Formats: sequence, C-alpha cells, structure tokens
Amino acid sequence: MISQLELLNEHRCFGGWQRYYQHPSQTIGLPMRFSIYLPPQVAAESAKECNDSRCLGEGQFPVLFFLAGLTCTEETFMIKAAAQQYAAEHGIILIAPDTSPRGAQVPTEDDDWDFGTGAGFYLDATRAPWSDHYRMESYVADELYEIVTQIFPGDGQRVGIFGHSMGGHGALVLAQRHPGKFKSVSAFAPIAAPTRCPWGKKAFEGYLGDDESQWAQHDASCLMASQASAPYPKGILVDQGLADQFLAEQLHPEALEQACEKVGQPLTLRRHEGYDHGYYFIMSFMADHMRFHAERL
Amino acid sequence: MISQLELLNEHRCFGGWQRYYQHPSQTIGLPMRFSIYLPPQVAAESAKECNDSRCLGEGQFPVLFFLAGLTCTEETFMIKAAAQQYAAEHGIILIAPDTSPRGAQVPTEDDDWDFGTGAGFYLDATRAPWSDHYRMESYVADELYEIVTQIFPGDGQRVGIFGHSMGGHGALVLAQRHPGKFKSVSAFAPIAAPTRCPWGKKAFEGYLGDDESQWAQHDASCLMASQASAPYPKGILVDQGLADQFLAEQLHPEALEQACEKVGQPLTLRRHEGYDHGYYFIMSFMADHMRFHAERL
Repeated sequence: MISQLELLNEHRCFGGWQRYYQHPSQTIGLPMRFSIYLPPQVAAESAKECNDSRCLGEGQFPVLFFLAGLTCTEETFMIKAAAQQYAAEHGIILIAPDTSPRGAQVPTEDDDWDFGTGAGFYLDATRAPWSDHYRMESYVADELYEIVTQIFPGDGQRVGIFGHSMGGHGALVLAQRHPGKFKSVSAFAPIAAPTRCPWGKKAFEGYLGDDESQWAQHDASCLMASQASAPYPKGILVDQGLADQFLAEQLHPEALEQACEKVGQPLTLRRHEGYDHGYYFIMSFMADHMRFHAERL
Repeated sequence: MISQLELLNEHRCFGGWQRYYQHPSQTIGLPMRFSIYLPPQVAAESAKECNDSRCLGEGQFPVLFFLAGLTCTEETFMIKAAAQQYAAEHGIILIAPDTSPRGAQVPTEDDDWDFGTGAGFYLDATRAPWSDHYRMESYVADELYEIVTQIFPGDGQRVGIFGHSMGGHGALVLAQRHPGKFKSVSAFAPIAAPTRCPWGKKAFEGYLGDDESQWAQHDASCLMASQASAPYPKGILVDQGLADQFLAEQLHPEALEQACEKVGQPLTLRRHEGYDHGYYFIMSFMADHMRFHAERL
C-alpha cells in the first residue's frame, strides 16, 4: 500500500511540471519529501487533468532517479543541475529523494554535516538507534520506486539511476544490490570506495557497526569486484573533476576502475582538468549523462 | 580609477570559468560582490594565465548583464538560471551584480524584504539616508560596466542587459536612461510600470522622495512613452508567465506594451500559460533570451 502524497508546490518548467511532494513514508516511519519533474510528454497525456498525483498513471515513461550528496535536500538537484531541459527533450521523468530522514530524533544526528541528517548514505542502518528510521536504501529502491512507477506513470522496465558524491555512491551501490531494477547507472564524482575513505568509514561504522565484512556490501568497488560478470554490459558513465577538493582523500575512482576492469564491466571514467566537486561541474556534463540514460532506457 | 578586485572563488563551468569577486566600490562606498562567467572563448585567450583579474583584457567579447530580483544576490542567477551553457555556446561574458549595497547601516534597511537590503531597484537614491550608499544605477551602468570592459575582456560596443522582476525593471530602465550603452535588452517578468504598483511606489518614495515627477524617470513604461523614436529598432524581448503570482498587482506588462506601441518600439511580449514568477520559468526560456542577445551583440 502506497502512502498518500501531498503536493507541496508545482512549477511549469520546459513545458512540463516541476513538483515537490511530502508523504508519510512507511519505510522511514517519518514524513519524507521528494521532487519530481514530469516532462511535457507526460503532461500531454495526463498531468493536466489533476493537481493531486493519484489520477496520473496511464502512460509509460522512462524514469531517472538522482541521488544527491552530503547536506543536500530533494531540492538541490532540481535547482542547480539544469537537467529538466534534457528530461523534456528525451521524455524522461526525473525523481530525487531527500538525503536522509528528517527529525528522527537521534540525539547526535545534527552534530556533523557528514553523518546523520543530510547524510543517510542510501543504506538501511542496522545499528541502533539509527536503524529505526535511517533506511534510505529501502526508501529509494522500494517505496519511492513503487511511487514513481505506480502512482506516477513511470515504466518499471525503464528506470535508471545516477547521483553525485554520496549520491554517486548510492547510485552505483543500489544499481548493483538490486539487479534488474535499474537499467542504467552513472555518477558524478562518486564516493567510489567508501570502505577506504573517512566519509565512508564514519558512515559505515555509525550505521552498520564495527563488523567491516558488512561494509563491503555497500561499497561500489567491492561489489563490482565480486560480480561474476559485468552487470551493465552497455557501460557505466562516471565523470570526475581533477580539481575536486575531495578527490584524493574521499572519492577513489581508480578503485572502481580496477574493479570494473577485473570483471569486464565497461566503464567510461572521464577525468576533467580544472573541474571541482560542485554543481557547476555537474551542470557542465549533465547533457551527456541524460543522453547516456536516454539511450539505455 | 578602477578599484582592486578580490577573487573569492572560481569554478570551471562548460569549458569556461565561473567566478565571484569582491571589490571596494567607489560608487557605493562599500565592498560589493559580483559574479562573472567567462566563456571558453575568453579562457582560451587569456583566462588561463592568471587567477587575479587584472591580467585579463586583450580579447574583445560581447557582454551580457543580468539584474536579479528582490531578495537575490550576485549568486542567484549563476546557480539557478542555467545560462552558462548558452554563454559558452555564443561566446558571451555574463556578469551579475548584487541587488543592493550590503551593510550600509541605514537603521531600517533590513526591516522589509522589498525595500533596502536586497532591493536596491537599480537606481541612485536621492533621499537621505539612502543616498549615501544606495547608488545601484551608477554602480551597474558606470563602475561595473567599466570593470567588465576594462579589466575583463568585454567589448564596450557589444554590451547587452537583461533581468528578472525588479531586475527586469532595472534592465529596461538602464537601457533607456543610458542611450547607446546597452545594445540589446530583454526581461523576464519585469516590474514594467513601477509607478503604478506597490513595490515600485514604496521604493520610489523611499529612495527618491515624494515628488512623483521624479519617479517617471525610473519607470520603463513612462520612459518608453516619452521616447521620440524607438530606442531598440531590432526589438525588445519580454517573457511573462500567466500563473505569476505577482502579475496582476505588481508587474503591468500591458503598460510597457502600450508605450512601445505608441513610439513604434518593436516588442515581443510572450505570455506563457501556467508559468509562475520563479527560476523554473526563467530557465525554461533562457535559451531564447541568450540567442536574442547573441544575434544583436
């Protein structure tokens, strides 16, 4: 059963609709917000008929999840990434969750910017007290997936996923942990080997506990290295700026590169001179990512 | 004499450079910030050679000023409008000032969101105490114009101007009050007749005083109606959303339309069903505005 959606606001954008919703998430146990862009192709069929979401749903359109990075919300991508124009061009539904539960009332959740609020790492915490609400993997891969393909007119056979930094980690990991669910995957400056970096170690120890054998199940490079064969024969696209202030310590794209090579997974890892970690970098290569997914969905 | 610029930060973007500067403004009498996007065509010639701005300057590139609306800063346009891709395509330098002085220490300047800080209205205040620092017209049309054409490689013969809401007012007014300086002008949802609307009346009374005869000199529609001939024979472009929450009370595009008709000024005023006042509207029509200016610069 899908929980009821409350439309917070909507804006016409490139002939389609940019919407923000809140809903009582069964997975998280708290209200969650997400953003969705419905391209004009959807609108022409059904979006005009209603303001609440439940009457959408006859068409079948490709869907692309975007997972944002540390400190972001469901709004960041839609404001800063300039992706809607390409979604309108290709007829793709864009959907972006928040980056963590909000108001879980874990005493320390607001202490650090890289753990807790705004830093859910797209996994289901197994360690108390985080395990009560910090369940972003199931929220994205099950609940939000169900919402976009059952309430909205997303085609469950044509769903892709991408993300940035912590969200690039999320995209690469969720794609591998849920075989067949996400037909295409790409990332901007992903945390490609979280078991090796401070952000990842802190998150995994906090959310999963001290047993490091569990951590590898949420590390894109470890997961890839253990694949029996290439999970994405049509390739994975990763863009990385070489002036990224987090590259050396936190991101480790070379680990993903080595793992892909090991299992024969085609990877296009583009290293861009001078580009940093922010959305000016992301917007610069958004057209390529949208085309990459459009060709595979 | 041009004051020294301090580069606050820079980001590669679409092959060019997105930069933020601070400088002690002689016009304002306080530190001011502005943002500038240097397209790859500039970078190829000179931007790579230095990090401080003073060594730029040999090339000659068209320039486009963007004036933002109430409550915005020099950052808003560069983050939200998705214009850089078109500036890169057309080889245009983008420059955006802040929307008011900051820290002028007028006791009431932070009381309202639509007057004072963040609401400079792109005019030189004549009424004390605002007249000490609130001099955004001279700041944009003289000081920043000089900076972009003398320190940066902007071509003083190819400078255009556009803006949104209060900044649309600013673009239409500065273009008319400084004949020959801005070769092209367009606007998104401009305050087209500020003498007729609450925002404009409040600003003009506060900054200019009670003599309403002075107000007309800062009203785009009044200025246009008093032109001897069309100041922009190649046309003016204005986009307006019909779901704009400020349209009926504050914007009055029909006044500009009537004034343009009176003096034979070609005006393309496009009214867009369903679009509101925000940047989702602006980004949807940015490509058209950038092309409009590129064809005229």
